[in-house]
Amino acid sequence: MITVPYGDAMTTSVNEPLLLSDADVRAHLSAERTVAAIRSALVEHHQGTLHAPARAHAELGDGALVFTVGRLAGQGVFGFRAYDTFVGAEQLVALWSEQDASLRAVVHGRELGNRRTGAIGAVAADLLAKPGPVRVGLFGTGLQAWTQLWALTAVRPVTEVLVQSRNPANAEAFAARARAELGVEIRPAGSPEEAARERDVVITATNSSTPVLEAEWLAPGTHLTTLGPKFAQHHEIPVELAERGEVFCTDSLAQLNGYPDPHLFAGKPMAQLGALAAGDAPGRTSADQVTVFCSVGLAGTEVAVAAALVEALG
Amino acid sequence: MITVPYGDAMTTSVNEPLLLSDADVRAHLSAERTVAAIRSALVEHHQGTLHAPARAHAELGDGALVFTVGRLAGQGVFGFRAYDTFVGAEQLVALWSEQDASLRAVVHGRELGNRRTGAIGAVAADLLAKPGPVRVGLFGTGLQAWTQLWALTAVRPVTEVLVQSRNPANAEAFAARARAELGVEIRPAGSPEEAARERDVVITATNSSTPVLEAEWLAPGTHLTTLGPKFAQHHEIPVELAERGEVFCTDSLAQLNGYPDPHLFAGKPMAQLGALAAGDAPGRTSADQVTVFCSVGLAGTEVAVAAALVEALG
Repeated sequence: MITVPYGDAMTTSVNEPLLLSDADVRAHLSAERTVAAIRSALVEHHQGTLHAPARAHAELGDGALVFTVGRLAGQGVFGFRAYDTFVGAEQLVALWSEQDASLRAVVHGRELGNRRTGAIGAVAADLLAKPGPVRVGLFGTGLQAWTQLWALTAVRPVTEVLVQSRNPANAEAFAARARAELGVEIRPAGSPEEAARERDVVITATNSSTPVLEAEWLAPGTHLTTLGPKFAQHHEIPVELAERGEVFCTDSLAQLNGYPDPHLFAGKPMAQLGALAAGDAPGRTSADQVTVFCSVGLAGTEVAVAAALVEALG
Repeated sequence: MITVPYGDAMTTSVNEPLLLSDADVRAHLSAERTVAAIRSALVEHHQGTLHAPARAHAELGDGALVFTVGRLAGQGVFGFRAYDTFVGAEQLVALWSEQDASLRAVVHGRELGNRRTGAIGAVAADLLAKPGPVRVGLFGTGLQAWTQLWALTAVRPVTEVLVQSRNPANAEAFAARARAELGVEIRPAGSPEEAARERDVVITATNSSTPVLEAEWLAPGTHLTTLGPKFAQHHEIPVELAERGEVFCTDSLAQLNGYPDPHLFAGKPMAQLGALAAGDAPGRTSADQVTVFCSVGLAGTEVAVAAALVEALG
């Protein structure tokens, strides 16, 4: 129903909102800034001041528009990310300020969302991996793999990266770009096994529905982050990881348990990343534990990152 | 779950989206263009090519973000309007093109939404009022009242407007603006009764929960559009209108019947405006029938209007 006050005055915003593109995100949203925004949002999540409801869907025939919505009460900002499932169009993130009820920014493209996911993975690795520099095994060479590595360099010295792809040319190109842009020591792995062995951090960022590595390849003390499928029926990580892993963590229990399919680690004790970030849950308790982070992309965190981007722009 | 292809290429949009404000809407979105876009969207709704699902809500503590989503398959565009219910912040309308999967425009502010509602009312009045010039009675002086009159001038000669407000100064100011900007003959009504008697079109655009007029004041042949509350328990129009009216119409039966409270005309045959616009329903069948249009703001029509705005700028 439309609310129609008599004599309603016309209101306009004090400032025009910013319209920001992937190029703006690349120019102004550093890994350090993104990680700091995510760490703070995770703590807010744990403390109950980040509202991150279930995704809202609107069916539009052969697909839907999907909205992941968030409100950070501590910062007085709210907004959402919108994406569709029928044409895969450009995504949009909108950010409002509660203080003056103004639309602050509209960010279009995919960089912000990917950097957000990278930063969540970096915070998880920082909280769960053994202290000190990390040797990394990376499965996948897509944008998600890239932003995981990008963000990781902001939390730990990254000493030796092995990147694994089904397509060797992709691994070569990824390694060349990472050397140039991130300044890390990196080369294509000789095999999936080499990419998984003797690593402090292993990251699987694929869309494979069958395991890309074996659990026994992981050295004691390895931290693994999985970004791709992790359902009981299709998963990029091996089912044996349920036994090999000793500490399990996700950024959102509600989202992990809210998928129509059960996840691979259903039944295992699962910590929430915000509790670790707030210092209210232990995470790793010994140097030889295998830790597993199940990334689902906590809703509302795009809003925190968009706020950090606006702040960076001054 | 995040879909993470190996070696996913980075895509960027061909063109930057347009960021448009209320000022842009006022400068480029004429009543004629808005009405034409709405008429076409209503026909698409009737023909089943406008997807207009129920509003999507995301709860955020003491309020929600709400999304009214639409997809016009005939035009290959989709998008949404977003608004909140806790701070009443600036609204946002987003428009995508399916053809190149690009975000075409982001429109912020309230003008587009109000003009959309005005144009729906104008199409209803054009289809339901007796042929020829119309004498108008207008209850309310807010933005909704304004855009109803603004759009009506695009479909019919408007010969004599009486505007009624609880606040005489608001009525005077509204009349002065309408004379200046719309060039219509208009004056404050001496009483609610005067504003309702001997009218061809009566528009109630208030948030009153008690009737602002009496049914017996309406002359035979009057068309009435109600924008404000029209629930069984609180309504700006009189309950006797259920008997006085002979033809009832709404822009969305699904939305009208989807409110938690039953509407005032539940049980009466109710046509859908798209059917009239498509020529598949009769509407008025004699000159002395009282016709009633229950405006609910068909979801998805903001997208049609945003597309018309972009075309106007093109």
